[in-house]
Amino acid sequence: MVNVGILGATGMVGQRFIQLLEDHPKFEITALTASQRSAGKKYQDAVTWHMDTPIPEAVEDTVVVDTDPSLVKDVEIVFSALPAGNAAVVEPKFAEAGMKVASNASAMRMEPDVPLVIPEVNPEHLDLIEIQQKRRGWDGFIVTNPNCSTIALVLTLKPIYDNFDIKRVYVSTMQAVSGAGYNGVPSMAILDNLVPFIGEEEEKMEEETLCLLGDFDGENVEPASFGLSTSCHRVPVVDGHTEAVFMEMDEEFELEDVKKSLTDFKALPQKLNLFSSPKNPIIVREEDNRPQPRMDRMREKGMAVTVGRLREDANIPNSFKYVLLGHNTIRGAAGASILNAELIAEIM
Amino acid sequence: MVNVGILGATGMVGQRFIQLLEDHPKFEITALTASQRSAGKKYQDAVTWHMDTPIPEAVEDTVVVDTDPSLVKDVEIVFSALPAGNAAVVEPKFAEAGMKVASNASAMRMEPDVPLVIPEVNPEHLDLIEIQQKRRGWDGFIVTNPNCSTIALVLTLKPIYDNFDIKRVYVSTMQAVSGAGYNGVPSMAILDNLVPFIGEEEEKMEEETLCLLGDFDGENVEPASFGLSTSCHRVPVVDGHTEAVFMEMDEEFELEDVKKSLTDFKALPQKLNLFSSPKNPIIVREEDNRPQPRMDRMREKGMAVTVGRLREDANIPNSFKYVLLGHNTIRGAAGASILNAELIAEIM
Amino acid sequence: MVNVGILGATGMVGQRFIQLLEDHPKFEITALTASQRSAGKKYQDAVTWHMDTPIPEAVEDTVVVDTDPSLVKDVEIVFSALPAGNAAVVEPKFAEAGMKVASNASAMRMEPDVPLVIPEVNPEHLDLIEIQQKRRGWDGFIVTNPNCSTIALVLTLKPIYDNFDIKRVYVSTMQAVSGAGYNGVPSMAILDNLVPFIGEEEEKMEEETLCLLGDFDGENVEPASFGLSTSCHRVPVVDGHTEAVFMEMDEEFELEDVKKSLTDFKALPQKLNLFSSPKNPIIVREEDNRPQPRMDRMREKGMAVTVGRLREDANIPNSFKYVLLGHNTIRGAAGASILNAELIAEIM
Amino acid sequence: MVNVGILGATGMVGQRFIQLLEDHPKFEITALTASQRSAGKKYQDAVTWHMDTPIPEAVEDTVVVDTDPSLVKDVEIVFSALPAGNAAVVEPKFAEAGMKVASNASAMRMEPDVPLVIPEVNPEHLDLIEIQQKRRGWDGFIVTNPNCSTIALVLTLKPIYDNFDIKRVYVSTMQAVSGAGYNGVPSMAILDNLVPFIGEEEEKMEEETLCLLGDFDGENVEPASFGLSTSCHRVPVVDGHTEAVFMEMDEEFELEDVKKSLTDFKALPQKLNLFSSPKNPIIVREEDNRPQPRMDRMREKGMAVTVGRLREDANIPNSFKYVLLGHNTIRGAAGASILNAELIAEIM
Repeated sequence: MVNVGILGATGMVGQRFIQLLEDHPKFEITALTASQRSAGKKYQDAVTWHMDTPIPEAVEDTVVVDTDPSLVKDVEIVFSALPAGNAAVVEPKFAEAGMKVASNASAMRMEPDVPLVIPEVNPEHLDLIEIQQKRRGWDGFIVTNPNCSTIALVLTLKPIYDNFDIKRVYVSTMQAVSGAGYNGVPSMAILDNLVPFIGEEEEKMEEETLCLLGDFDGENVEPASFGLSTSCHRVPVVDGHTEAVFMEMDEEFELEDVKKSLTDFKALPQKLNLFSSPKNPIIVREEDNRPQPRMDRMREKGMAVTVGRLREDANIPNSFKYVLLGHNTIRGAAGASILNAELIAEIM
Repeated sequence: MVNVGILGATGMVGQRFIQLLEDHPKFEITALTASQRSAGKKYQDAVTWHMDTPIPEAVEDTVVVDTDPSLVKDVEIVFSALPAGNAAVVEPKFAEAGMKVASNASAMRMEPDVPLVIPEVNPEHLDLIEIQQKRRGWDGFIVTNPNCSTIALVLTLKPIYDNFDIKRVYVSTMQAVSGAGYNGVPSMAILDNLVPFIGEEEEKMEEETLCLLGDFDGENVEPASFGLSTSCHRVPVVDGHTEAVFMEMDEEFELEDVKKSLTDFKALPQKLNLFSSPKNPIIVREEDNRPQPRMDRMREKGMAVTVGRLREDANIPNSFKYVLLGHNTIRGAAGASILNAELIAEIM
Repeated sequence: MVNVGILGATGMVGQRFIQLLEDHPKFEITALTASQRSAGKKYQDAVTWHMDTPIPEAVEDTVVVDTDPSLVKDVEIVFSALPAGNAAVVEPKFAEAGMKVASNASAMRMEPDVPLVIPEVNPEHLDLIEIQQKRRGWDGFIVTNPNCSTIALVLTLKPIYDNFDIKRVYVSTMQAVSGAGYNGVPSMAILDNLVPFIGEEEEKMEEETLCLLGDFDGENVEPASFGLSTSCHRVPVVDGHTEAVFMEMDEEFELEDVKKSLTDFKALPQKLNLFSSPKNPIIVREEDNRPQPRMDRMREKGMAVTVGRLREDANIPNSFKYVLLGHNTIRGAAGASILNAELIAEIM
Repeated sequence: MVNVGILGATGMVGQRFIQLLEDHPKFEITALTASQRSAGKKYQDAVTWHMDTPIPEAVEDTVVVDTDPSLVKDVEIVFSALPAGNAAVVEPKFAEAGMKVASNASAMRMEPDVPLVIPEVNPEHLDLIEIQQKRRGWDGFIVTNPNCSTIALVLTLKPIYDNFDIKRVYVSTMQAVSGAGYNGVPSMAILDNLVPFIGEEEEKMEEETLCLLGDFDGENVEPASFGLSTSCHRVPVVDGHTEAVFMEMDEEFELEDVKKSLTDFKALPQKLNLFSSPKNPIIVREEDNRPQPRMDRMREKGMAVTVGRLREDANIPNSFKYVLLGHNTIRGAAGASILNAELIAEIM
């Protein structure tokens, strides 16, 4: 078993890490960190637990420590559920102290020597780690996963990008409230309502997507170059981000071929049979009215993205559209970091 | 006062007609029709009233009649809130009997001699009435308004279309449940959920939009010719359709000019000062997080469309995007038919 | 016109005061206070406005001042929308400075010389004002209204209490999220969920109810003495508290008589025809499935309480039950304070 | 393995039966019935599947038959998810044909020779089966479980009833929309709203509760005799009924003893270790704000009832109150019938 720690263990994403790791065959939680207010308390006393399964017994009495690498002993991997501002300062310290940091925070994602990775999409970007360690003189390293809405999108773009010439992509999201953290969206803001804005979300989606699909030349990642525009909206859904995608190709295509590329998509995590990897990263549904968050978010334990309503455009040539859905706090956050760590543990 | 009737007076849109006409200065409801099950009953006994204001006293005891022109006496204008199938059969009979039919139903919208009109957008299409009457030998006529999601979209497209060269428009909607009628969307389908499909909605939006912005050459309407693609979704909101719009222009433009064209937009109903016309058909908001359905749907008594988040695209040249919101059962349905009738009463 | 001020003008209840006073025939807002962070700003810049009507023009540019009586000039009445802790300190200062404080805060409600008043229920308790002024040496005074869920309950208890012998009352509430303030209830806590607890709400309901129905002997209020037990729950509703009431009488009664006492109930505000008083404080509905928050909360501009499902108990003698609904931020908060002030302005 | 069938397999409760039986160690689904419209189709083609897990492979291709015992071969137990009207006619035919009918329908619950059973509460009532078979000349029999809201309530009443003298119980429910079936509650009726009425629910709760706690004297069940009054309300929650319970005892008691009786409660299903029986039928929580539907409904796979807010009344002697929560379509419907069948399979 590999000893792992959770940085920011009392927040929503921290709790999701703990829930997902409960019966993990390779990772054993041996350290939990939180803010000073919680340090010194047993986890069950420090946390206001919001998951719909009980606190795993194995961590109930684990004493929470301050988020400081000197207090986290004998741990090989730390999962970071820290807020962005905090992560920028703290994650490098853990890497410097020799730990492998699998981070869900946005702070380091766009550093040129920090890999931003989805195992099914761009595992080759992990080679940046060597450059990162050399340049920064670290024994450990930081690897990041993208934003929740980016992950679901890019999983579906990957097989299309590999097999067709994408010219233009427009994405309109309908995102769940859990993405903003427990206190992020007041009920007064979202009951019988929606909010057509999520701070920095559109910028992240556009930048991260092109980076994830970019080429790594041994030194740097050269972003992909198709046009991409996103509009992000919060809707009264607990978990599960839905995205309407409009795509224009550079040339003619058969919609059946696009569909086949999505349906057949398997990648490295599936070949390696990693514990958290879905058998089918993309599930394509034929029904008119799917995907739906409450019905589809938990497919493959929340690690698959469901695609539906694949259809051609009536008025725009070489174009088609579809709707996708991914679980934002599993595939889009904690599960993404865990899958990154599983891949690293397997191949490095 | 002009005597008016409501066809399909017990349904959701029928109720909205009655609510909106309660204190109308020119129109007086003198006839209410419904299915045979309701015929012969007082309106208050025939209806399950779902509005949040009481049934107007003036219609409480009005006896509902079957939807048959021979039973609707001394009425000049009838508002049709009939279901599409029914409307196709019944509306022509009322027109034949000499009545002016202002219809919210989709049945006749795409007939080449039936005007599909938004008073602020294409009042000149009303000249089709003469052609319609001649061709069909009717004393009365039928005029229609578009689908709820089309109206809100086209109101915002009109000033842009008039002042710039639109190349491409992508629209992703987040539509309120009231658009499907009282029993249209089960709560099990929409609580903690959304449904990424609304039957025939995308086809209607695409076809109607291009028709509304089309040229009337004295005989026919030649549809507008820019690219348009829509994706329609139902969200857990009671009233108010929100739409994310992505637009590409044929050439460079200043976003401030687009904004000014929206802000300054006034048209015929404003000049004629029609009773139901909003002073400002389009309200542009500067806040990051507007428009929102619960906050903005009732602006100008539900007859204005609110636009927000006007911003340029980072990755696509000559492009910008915005979010709009309109009240789907007021501006998008009953209010639209009433405004059509007010315009007709004023100018014909 | 009487000059009035709003203490805590930027919060939810403060905003509701401003909305309700927009076209008031006697009260004119001339002062707005808030925390130091807002002081010195124009109201429209200081507030994040959450009402569904625009900020009244008359206060848009009013400069907000710190909540300090020396900064509030030429004002006769102040409405307090302060949080409880703050109110305990600040409201006495305004009373000492000679102002009439109509408070919605809970801080002073249970002070023996501060009247807790619903104009329809216990206007005679206002005689405590003289005692208060004498005892405390104030030129001004403080008058309070009860908690939102108490007001709606007690309005319905009053005619029953006056005409029958109440032995026992059990109340189970289903309260709207707006009662907790804009940020009070996170969406994660209430979507597809409910919270069976509201801090101190049950204590307030039980204590305040018995006080409101108590006898004022010229010196003190002797609380009513029937048994009362409440259980308070938060549900995913924006506005409008619903309460299920079970009542046992000391002797036999006719349910029709109870109903008549509710239907016929009129009191002092109706006789005086105060501007904010509903014509019918209690509306009794016959339908099986009413009252409902979205349908009934705005009856009589949000100032009436709607009662439904009046029915006898099958298994418990001399007992009956009903369901009531009141608008928690109008009748239950800002509107209650305004009605208190209107009564005071009329009779003192 | 025992062959079982599902009557009414395409409805919401029918689907839940299929979901819960997917990996059952003793019961194997070999027959599915539905209305004539579905008969002859494969299950996956006949059903609009609404569960959040996929259709079990084992039944995907099962051909649905009409609900007629002659078409259901070699089946020992049938679970009935039929609507009440239908059940009254059809269930007796299956019993006559020799099958054991475990019914969730209300039709036969109050027949004096049909046991209404919760395995933890009144397994001895199963002795009515012999009387039923004798009286009706059936080889098979019908056993029923109570209404969803009754089950959760009675599970918590049972240990109290056994250890204390209950005088009076008042219950106010907040019930999930799934209890009304997929199309039962329109979204227009429940978004930003609640409905204070559920047809016949109060009557069922009152009658069934007293029957379940009644004494079986070898011939008949003599209902329990304490006072019981219920008020039932529908709230915008997908799954999980919450109930506020007020209880008066005949004499003094220690609240800690009540709590202990709830916490320690185990009964026959726990002793027999039946597959679907929860280890702890009642989970008592200490937090102020629990139970909550989304957090607690799935405890013990949806088969436990969670109790919280156990507290004494301030104003009413010998009284206390609490809030309970149970999963209405698992513990309160399909799971209840399955547990009944497991008990019967074990002891008969």
